[in-house]
Amino acid sequence: MDNTVNTTASLNTAHSLENSLFLRACRRQPTDATPIWLMRQAGRYMVEYRRLREKHTILEMIKTPELACEVTLQPINAFDLDAAIIFADILPPLEGMGLELDFIKGEGPTIYNPIRNEADVERLRVLPPEETLRFTLDAIKLARQELDLRGIPLIGFSGAPFTLASYAIEGGSSRNRIQVKNMMMSQPAMWHTLMTKLSEVAGHYLLAQAHAGAQVIQLFDSWAGELSAYDYENFVLPYSRHAIEIASQSGVPIIHFGTGTSGMLKLIQAAGGDVIGVDWRIDLAQAWQILGDNVSVQGNLDPVTLFADWDALEARSRHILDSVHGKPGHIFNLGHGILPETPVDNVRRLVDFVHEYSQKLRTTA
Amino acid sequence: MDNTVNTTASLNTAHSLENSLFLRACRRQPTDATPIWLMRQAGRYMVEYRRLREKHTILEMIKTPELACEVTLQPINAFDLDAAIIFADILPPLEGMGLELDFIKGEGPTIYNPIRNEADVERLRVLPPEETLRFTLDAIKLARQELDLRGIPLIGFSGAPFTLASYAIEGGSSRNRIQVKNMMMSQPAMWHTLMTKLSEVAGHYLLAQAHAGAQVIQLFDSWAGELSAYDYENFVLPYSRHAIEIASQSGVPIIHFGTGTSGMLKLIQAAGGDVIGVDWRIDLAQAWQILGDNVSVQGNLDPVTLFADWDALEARSRHILDSVHGKPGHIFNLGHGILPETPVDNVRRLVDFVHEYSQKLRTTA
Repeated sequence: MDNTVNTTASLNTAHSLENSLFLRACRRQPTDATPIWLMRQAGRYMVEYRRLREKHTILEMIKTPELACEVTLQPINAFDLDAAIIFADILPPLEGMGLELDFIKGEGPTIYNPIRNEADVERLRVLPPEETLRFTLDAIKLARQELDLRGIPLIGFSGAPFTLASYAIEGGSSRNRIQVKNMMMSQPAMWHTLMTKLSEVAGHYLLAQAHAGAQVIQLFDSWAGELSAYDYENFVLPYSRHAIEIASQSGVPIIHFGTGTSGMLKLIQAAGGDVIGVDWRIDLAQAWQILGDNVSVQGNLDPVTLFADWDALEARSRHILDSVHGKPGHIFNLGHGILPETPVDNVRRLVDFVHEYSQKLRTTA
Repeated sequence: MDNTVNTTASLNTAHSLENSLFLRACRRQPTDATPIWLMRQAGRYMVEYRRLREKHTILEMIKTPELACEVTLQPINAFDLDAAIIFADILPPLEGMGLELDFIKGEGPTIYNPIRNEADVERLRVLPPEETLRFTLDAIKLARQELDLRGIPLIGFSGAPFTLASYAIEGGSSRNRIQVKNMMMSQPAMWHTLMTKLSEVAGHYLLAQAHAGAQVIQLFDSWAGELSAYDYENFVLPYSRHAIEIASQSGVPIIHFGTGTSGMLKLIQAAGGDVIGVDWRIDLAQAWQILGDNVSVQGNLDPVTLFADWDALEARSRHILDSVHGKPGHIFNLGHGILPETPVDNVRRLVDFVHEYSQKLRTTA
């Protein structure tokens, strides 16, 4: 795998890719229909994924570029999606820093040596992503070769500094996040050192993914919504901004997404991003009004809606599309990752409905 | 226990109670200092509670008026709180409807016979709270006798229809609430029948608590924040409103609280309430601006802040008080229930700080 092949391939299809629904929407340019992709679209709800997963661990799939590429393409082969997202996880950047990461069945991600004191923070390494996360960069190059032929853009991503810190300190998922918040509140100097390192790692990882060929990059702050606006603004925003500033050297559009952040969307936006991801806990049109017209929005169907009857799913999807009536800059997505048991048929119908209905909406507007 | 005793007692102290910080703030009248109480203030973080809990199950403590009264008074004896809340739970109304409720160690509330189909919904009974929840009404009468002597108002409460439905259908806590949302979305007629019954039960339970002597009642919608604004507005708001309309026949102030509702505060308010409870995921002053001046607000310190150093706890409490600078109608509280391992000393310091600092704020304004 070398850059030359990839660059040639992308030049060949540059025109169609550059004018794809998704990339145009990221730039707030008008489109004939609303683009759609789904967070965690390469995942357990697909039988193709589960078959591969029977033979490999999650980390094997992430770290073998051919497998990661294959999984990335599975939903693209199955549905008329407007973007692919590289198969990876928000947490591998922590491994490169010296933390031992594993995915345990039924428990989710686990860090065997979580950060507990200043020495732990000092020990964390900040290395170039080409050294620690080359597997994902290689997977991006492979996937781009395939996707360029189809004119589909590819998204790279990383966990945001606070979400990385949550896992690094708690050692896994945590109901109340007492340890991470306590370090943030009670040990500001240690917190600053930690968050500076995490923002450097996340920022350079996103930058490297763009250089490897991702046309769009997304910063996932899954746990930002557990913070007060005060704590987000003073102890998290500066580090997310730093990561985004590093990543934006690439020039590619950046999506900034956090769950549960309905009450602090302006702060999320202040940290940066060309597209703000919005979860389902706020009306999308209202969220866009708060954010203003100089930004694209991504969202915001409740993932559980995909379990409902088609009539109910259609009504809620239609409501979202109606509420922003084809305004340039809307990317349809779920408000969070697609759930493991989601019926595949509803996914197919949703993707087609969003295209068809949003196209009709534009011609009758 | 009869009503006469209780009524006499409350008449004796009516003046001071009526002019208590808490009741005045519920009515948006000026106060010399900001009142404070803490959600779940009678709970596991107190050694007095844990000692009693060693000898009794949670349901025994709820269903024995003398024990419930004792637990209600524990935090009042320990801290300078401005209101007591009757020791009970949001879920016992479900028991009276025919569901088998238990609290299992480590798992929280469990319903052994959750609602799965139309016959289950039809079977649910709507009985007068005097028949099904008399233990809590009696506990309120007992607690009022004690509290009247100290001039401390008492809060009664119930789970809101959606939160009750969540537990009734899921059978316990649930990460994604797929079953309850699926019934809501895919079976609107069954949902309507269920939610009508739940709103009748919750409304009449709150009304009976006010008649038994609670000076304020709170509707807890712990899970409302898991819904989209669309679903809340169409499938939940009408039923919360119905419960609040029934309860408001009492004439006592009503607090309406939901977690994770930063993006739909106007909808929560539209369902009713003299005081809107706000969790910590939005700046309190911003929340009050969204709600407007015709309502009191309660909140909104992140409960995890109580685990931090005093300096960090003070800074965040001061920020909340500064942001609304003594405006009549603010009741200081946590953004959700106090956590089991909370250090008691921080609770004491917080309560005293809120009184002292908010008093100073008023004299220097």
